Order: sequence, then C-alpha cells, then structure tokens
Amino acid sequence: MANAKQVSGKLEWRINVPDGTSNVLVPESDQLVNKAWLWLKGLLCGPILIIWRFLYKAWNLGVAEPKKAIHGVKVGLSLLIVSFFYYMRPLYDGVGGNAMWAVMTVVVVFESTVGATLCKCFNRTIGTFLAGSLALGVQWIADKSGETFQPIIIGISVFLLASAATFSRFIPSVKTRFDYGAMIFILTFSLVAVSGYRVERLFEMAHQRLSTIAIGTSLCIVITMVFCPIWAGSGLHDMIVCNLEKLADSLDGCVGEYFKDDKTKLGNEEDPSKRMQGYKCVLNSKATEEVMANLARWEPAHGRFNFRHPWKQYLKIGTSMRKCAYCIEALNSCINSEIQAPDYLKKHLRDVCMLLSNNSSEVLKELVIAMKTLTKSSKIDLLIGEMNLAVQKVQDSLNSLPNSFIGPAVSTLQAPNDANKETITKTAIPSLMEVFPLASLVYLLIEIAARTEGIADAVDQLAGLAEFELAMDENSKQKKPNSNSTSDIQDHETMKTLPKV
Amino acid sequence: MANAKQVSGKLEWRINVPDGTSNVLVPESDQLVNKAWLWLKGLLCGPILIIWRFLYKAWNLGVAEPKKAIHGVKVGLSLLIVSFFYYMRPLYDGVGGNAMWAVMTVVVVFESTVGATLCKCFNRTIGTFLAGSLALGVQWIADKSGETFQPIIIGISVFLLASAATFSRFIPSVKTRFDYGAMIFILTFSLVAVSGYRVERLFEMAHQRLSTIAIGTSLCIVITMVFCPIWAGSGLHDMIVCNLEKLADSLDGCVGEYFKDDKTKLGNEEDPSKRMQGYKCVLNSKATEEVMANLARWEPAHGRFNFRHPWKQYLKIGTSMRKCAYCIEALNSCINSEIQAPDYLKKHLRDVCMLLSNNSSEVLKELVIAMKTLTKSSKIDLLIGEMNLAVQKVQDSLNSLPNSFIGPAVSTLQAPNDANKETITKTAIPSLMEVFPLASLVYLLIEIAARTEGIADAVDQLAGLAEFELAMDENSKQKKPNSNSTSDIQDHETMKTLPKV
Repeated sequence: MANAKQVSGKLEWRINVPDGTSNVLVPESDQLVNKAWLWLKGLLCGPILIIWRFLYKAWNLGVAEPKKAIHGVKVGLSLLIVSFFYYMRPLYDGVGGNAMWAVMTVVVVFESTVGATLCKCFNRTIGTFLAGSLALGVQWIADKSGETFQPIIIGISVFLLASAATFSRFIPSVKTRFDYGAMIFILTFSLVAVSGYRVERLFEMAHQRLSTIAIGTSLCIVITMVFCPIWAGSGLHDMIVCNLEKLADSLDGCVGEYFKDDKTKLGNEEDPSKRMQGYKCVLNSKATEEVMANLARWEPAHGRFNFRHPWKQYLKIGTSMRKCAYCIEALNSCINSEIQAPDYLKKHLRDVCMLLSNNSSEVLKELVIAMKTLTKSSKIDLLIGEMNLAVQKVQDSLNSLPNSFIGPAVSTLQAPNDANKETITKTAIPSLMEVFPLASLVYLLIEIAARTEGIADAVDQLAGLAEFELAMDENSKQKKPNSNSTSDIQDHETMKTLPKV
Repeated sequence: MANAKQVSGKLEWRINVPDGTSNVLVPESDQLVNKAWLWLKGLLCGPILIIWRFLYKAWNLGVAEPKKAIHGVKVGLSLLIVSFFYYMRPLYDGVGGNAMWAVMTVVVVFESTVGATLCKCFNRTIGTFLAGSLALGVQWIADKSGETFQPIIIGISVFLLASAATFSRFIPSVKTRFDYGAMIFILTFSLVAVSGYRVERLFEMAHQRLSTIAIGTSLCIVITMVFCPIWAGSGLHDMIVCNLEKLADSLDGCVGEYFKDDKTKLGNEEDPSKRMQGYKCVLNSKATEEVMANLARWEPAHGRFNFRHPWKQYLKIGTSMRKCAYCIEALNSCINSEIQAPDYLKKHLRDVCMLLSNNSSEVLKELVIAMKTLTKSSKIDLLIGEMNLAVQKVQDSLNSLPNSFIGPAVSTLQAPNDANKETITKTAIPSLMEVFPLASLVYLLIEIAARTEGIADAVDQLAGLAEFELAMDENSKQKKPNSNSTSDIQDHETMKTLPKV
C-alpha cells in the first residue's frame, strides 16, 4: 500500500511540476503522460489480450470436446505417479537412479487414443530390445577386435544401421506401423553402442533401462485404458456414421433448395445452407480415416467391437462416401448456377427428382441406423429397390418429356395460321442451354443413387466381415409377410438390376 | 565339414533302416523326408522371401526417390559425427558426460525436410529453455517452503503444467507449429522439477543439457542445409506444378476419350486411362499440402524462393485445384456412362466441346509454365479470354441445337402424309434420357472452365504476393503489337465478363 501511494504521489508531482512553471506546457505534458499511458496500456494489454483470446479458444475447445481435456488430466496424473519414483527412496534405488527414463517414456508414449498409446508402447519396447541386443553384439565383436579397431567398427555399424533404419521409415508398410519403433531403434542402438565405450556395466544399464521403460509403458497402458479410455476404433466408427448422416442431410438440403417453393421455405425454419455444407467434411476425411484405422488395429476388444474388427473395411466405406460427396459437390454447383431451367420444366421433374433424392437419403439414413446398432438392416434391400424404382421413374418422365414439351409447338404447327409460328416455337421450346443445368442435376442425382448403392455394398461387406446380426424391428416384422412373398422378391431383384446411367 | 557328413550319414541311415525291413515302407519314408524337407524349406524360405520382397521394395523406393536414401545417409553421418563426443576425451569431459543428450537430439530432431528440422530444432531449444527456467523457479519456491511442502508443491506443479501443456497440443494454432515444443516442455519440466529433489548441482545440469542440445541442433541444421538439402517449400511448389499438369492431362484425356474416333485412337499410342487418372492425386492432396506449407514457413530463402514467400497462397491454389478435380471426377462418370448420346448429337457438339476443353487445359498448361518460371504470364488473360469465348461458342451451338435436331421432325409434320409420322418423330428426336449424359458433360465442361479461371486467379494472387516479374517471351513480343491495341483489350475485357453458367 505504501508503495502504491508513493507511486501515485510521484505521478501527481510529475504532473504538477510543469503546471507550476508554465501554463502552456500543461497540455503537452498531459499528452506525454497520455502517450506513455497508452504505450504502457498497449504493452500490457496486447499480450494480455492475446493470452485472453488463447485461453478463450482453449476453454471453448475444452467445452466442445471434453475428451481432450480429460486426456490432459490423464497425462498429468501419469506423470505425478511416475514421479513418485524420485521421491520414494526404495523405488529410486530399485531402478538404479534411472527413473528419468520412466518419466521420459510416459511423456513421449502417452497419446490421446488407446490405439496410438499401445502402438507406441509396443514400438518403444520392441525397438529398445532389438537395438539393445544388437548393440551389445556389436560391442562384443568390437571388444574382441582390439583397441584400434573398436571405434571404427562401432562407428561404421552406427552409420550403416542408422542410415538403413532411417531409410526404412519411408517404406509405406514400416511408416504406417513401425515408424516410431524405427526411431527408437536408431536412438537406442547409437546410445548403447557408443556409450559402451565408456560405461563398463553395460548389461546392468540395459537391464535398468528396459525395466524403467516397462514401468513407464505399463503405467501408460493402465491409465489410458482404465480412466475414460478414448478408442481410435470407436472414433473411426462414429466419424463414418456422422459423415453418412451429413451426406444424407446435404443431399436432402441441396435438392430441396433447388426445387423449393414458398411452402417448403416456411416449413423448414433452420438454415439450410449449413446443412447443405455437410458433405465438405466427407471430401477431406481420407487422411484422418487412414490414421484412425491404422491405430484401431492395435486396440483390444472394446465396447461392441471385437479385437479383429475389420477396420480396413471402414476405409472402403469412406472411399465410396467420398465418391458420393464429389457428385454432391458438382450438384451444388448446378444449384448455384446463374442460368435456371424454365419453371414448368422444373415442376415437371420436381416430384420424381425429390422422390429419387429422398429415396437415396433414406438409404443413407438406414445405413446410419444399421451402423449405429451394428446390425444388418432388414429393410436396406427394399429401400435400394425403391431407389432404383425412382431412378426408373425419373428416366420414364424424361422419356416422356420431349413430346410434352414440344407439345404446344406441334399443335401450333398443325394450325393453318402460320403468322406467329416462329414466336410460339421459340417460347414453347426452351433452349437446350436452359435445360442443361437441370439435365446435369438429374444426371448427377441418378449417379448419386448408383454411388449410394456402392456405399450400401461396402456397409454390407462390413456387416458380413464383422458378422453383424440381422436387425428384427417391429416395422420389418409387420412388413415381412407382404414383402417376403416370392413375386415381391423377384420385383426387388429386377429393381436392383435396372439399367443405370 | 565333419558335422555335415555326420548329418548326411544319419539321414542316409534313417532312410535305409526302413528300406532294410520292409519294401512297402520306402515310399512312406520318402514322403516323410520330403515333408520334412518341404517344412524346412518353408521355414527357411518363408522369412527369406519376406525379407527379399522387403529389400526389393526398399530398393525400388530408393531408385525412384533417391532423396530419401540420401536423407538416410545424412542421418547416419550426423550420428557418426556426434558420436565423436564419446570417443574424444576432451569433448566428452567438456559436456560433463552428457553426450547422450546430443545423440538423442540428433536422432529425434533430424527430419527429411529442412523446414521440419528447423521447426523441431526451434521447438526443442525454446521448449527446453522455457521449461528449464520455469522448473528452476518452481524448485526455488519449493525449497523455500520447507521439507514437507516441497514434494507437494512440485507434484502439483507437474500435474497442472503437464495437463495444461498436453491439452494445449490440441489447440489448432499450437498443434500446427509448436506441437513438438509442448511435448519437450512437459518432458524437460518434469525431469528438471522432479530430479531437482535429488540432483544437487541443478544449474550445472541445466547448462550442460542446453549446451548438448545446442551442439545437436546446430549439427543437424548444418548437415541438413549443406548436404543435398530437401526443402519443404520447393517440394510444395513442385507438387502444385505437377498437380496442375495432371489436371490438364486428365481433362484432355477424359474429353478426348469421350469424343474419340478411330483416327484419334490410332494417333494416340500411349495408354489414355493412365493419363486420365491423374486428377485422383489432386483429390486427396489437402493433408500433404497443409503439412508442407506449415514446414515451408520455417525455411530461409532458398533457390528462387524468398524467406517470406507466400506459402499459404499455395493452399488456396490447392483448394481451387481440388474444386476443379471434383468436376473432372463427375465428368469421368459421364464418360463411363452406359447410356450414350446418339452419334450425330455427339458430332454436333464434338468440335466446340473439344475446343473448350483444349482451351481450359491450355490455361492450365500456361499456369504450369508461369509457376515453373516464377513469372507472371503475359498470355494468360488472352487464353482465359479464348476459353470464355469457347464457352460462348458452346452455349451458341446449344442454343442452335433444338431447331436443328427437331428439324427433320418438323418437316415430316408439315408433309400431308401422316401415316408414318409417329415413327419418324421417335427416331429423329432423341429421348432426353439419351441426351442427359452429354448434357451433363457439357455443363461440367463449362463449370470446369469457370473453376479453371478460379485457379488462374489464385495463381495470379500468388504472383502479386510474391512479386513475380512479367514473362517476356518471343511469342508474346511478336503478338504484342496486335494484341495490345485498345480494341483488342476491350475485347478481352468483354470476353472475361461473359455470362457463365
């Protein structure tokens, strides 16, 4: 308090001194003080504002994805536990003062998903063990070959093995699964081979290092799997399900937006543009999917997934979803096209197009349900059949179109009065230029239906590989007596083999 | 040799024993030997075959991308140099026996690109320094607060800081640039704070650790930048250029394939399907581009690129290229469509479509040249003008189409004889269903032209940001006197502002 008073007194004094000597100087000194104050404020507030914004962002992220905050707490907890090795004299002596390696293992091995942690633990253990044994062997040979050759043999072996192991990290099969192991191999081999030149009790060191790594990895594995585990497999599954939903929403949104009239506008109160953009998440999901599928392979059985759950099949589903998303992207550009088809043509095709897109998104939504419940959908064949029937309807209504839209022109032509024939023809027949965005839209819808079937096939393969059970819900039971009759099944078969564009 | 003889003798004996007792057993024993031999062969050959295949793959990779092999050699060389710290007594004593940290730094910091190495070096140094200072501060406070509180204060600080730093690694701005630094921060803080409890000469240890890290990082930086440096920036630039070329090739390939006749088939001897698939590389390039752009920002001026080269603009070019690639993907499906438009309609649109796609790919190829030479293309506006003129031509020929393709039908209708009117109408007017894939193709070509202009805009922005000079080649000099006249410039302006679909 005394300090604060002193400072404020000084400030007053500084302001008062020019006040006493000259009246003209008052505003100038005020300016100076103001400037200094502003400068100080900028100096202080700038970083504070940056930090504040950073914390605000971090807070939002934590609220949106609490799993990430939990992961942070888990790492803190593991480090706290592993640091007991320093405080407890018997533990510290037990690992010969090498507790550092346990701390280091926890820090570098603990990843946010169980799969990634297991992968790193495995890689670290195997890499250390292999490299350690090899280094001891090289050390033994070097020892036998005399004082002068020892550093040469070790140097050459370090150079060759480090080069080879580094290069091997570029080979795809190594990169996806053993990248970290190769790095640990180089690290351990160099350390053991080179320090063997100095450290006499090499075996003891290797043993201690392995035991500290074992302590660190087992601690990580226990904590990552016991406290709120975050599974890469479940994450991948949820992501695929979420992307399927987004695809269905985008498709509904795009086609609804194109054919919308005031009635549907009023009924649908949420912002459609946001729903329509969902497909963009699907477009760029490849890298994430691949990483997660690779990590999921390391994970044991968890939740509803077995140990050998066919995670690779999710990549195939992802690929077929992206194919569908590319079409929706092109569809989106049709909707935003400057040139629009004439209204009567739009109305003519509105119902069949809406039916087709609805059927396609129904199929996608049924796949979402099947994936969520991990069952084989009993309705999916029916829905695909309906979708293909809708494709047929679109094709029929297109085939009937030339006659109907040159209809008025023909009747005018047959009239004896030829005076205004030219004008009527011009207005009745829309230029192909006007039809083309609509034509493209219809074509893309048919293509999307075909690609939706591709997604359904991929999901069906997954159901086969993972041995999903057949879903038996109330609706399908009620429908079954009708839909299972032989003629109906044949109908579905024919529907499934309809010619597609 | 004696050993081998003994073994073979034993084998003979084994075979001969049953031979002597019973003739029936001969084939059985032969079978046994055969089986054993096959089993042994399988046991030996299996791993050998796997290793052989692995080495073959590795060799192929090394031949295809020698830079990766060179990187391996560079890492080996660095480790060899840093291991001298163990062999040279004065060097070893200079760092107080902490040469291990220098080796470790080299192994974990040395990445294949200069940008990645610099990023990791910076992160490691700053992370170690910050965490070290903070840990010393915490240690000091803990020391002052007495025996009992010391481990509690240190434990809590380790828990809180490790949790916060781990969580911060999820924040995008930290993740892209300081992910490794955050990990090193946790590592160093835990090690220094916790081992401070035991190690008395803490300051000395911190100093030694910093100096070994300085030795390791500077060695890495020198070797990565002096011997065959691999720049992330150049890599990104080359990738974008290569992708532009692939887009142009795919577009040419797709449209050529659709409108091909026997003449073009014979002329073009290389496999077109391979050329057509180039766009697929563009579809999934986002993740790689982002990583490389992030790393390129760390790199100093190199080759033809300045220190503050606008690498972020490459991401925008990449995005606009992907937009174009999505359309080519949809275009590709039109080409493989089962239903094909009637030949005369194809012929009618063949020339204008080929013109449009050629012009689009010309624009792309000109962009490739501009990017390769790091110049502002003088012809690009002209080419974009020509492309837009081609769009106009396509639109014109579409507008003229309804009359021409219902032409024969109209003349039949005007004839008094109505007997075979229906059949002629049916054959003369193609069903819209047949026209739709073609319509979609034309629509997509126009859309591709618009998106190509988007790429050109992004490249133009890059040229502005990076201050590329205007290219002055012979052709443009010859053209200039004509093309620079006022009327022509106006023409180009109007061409550039033509209505687009």
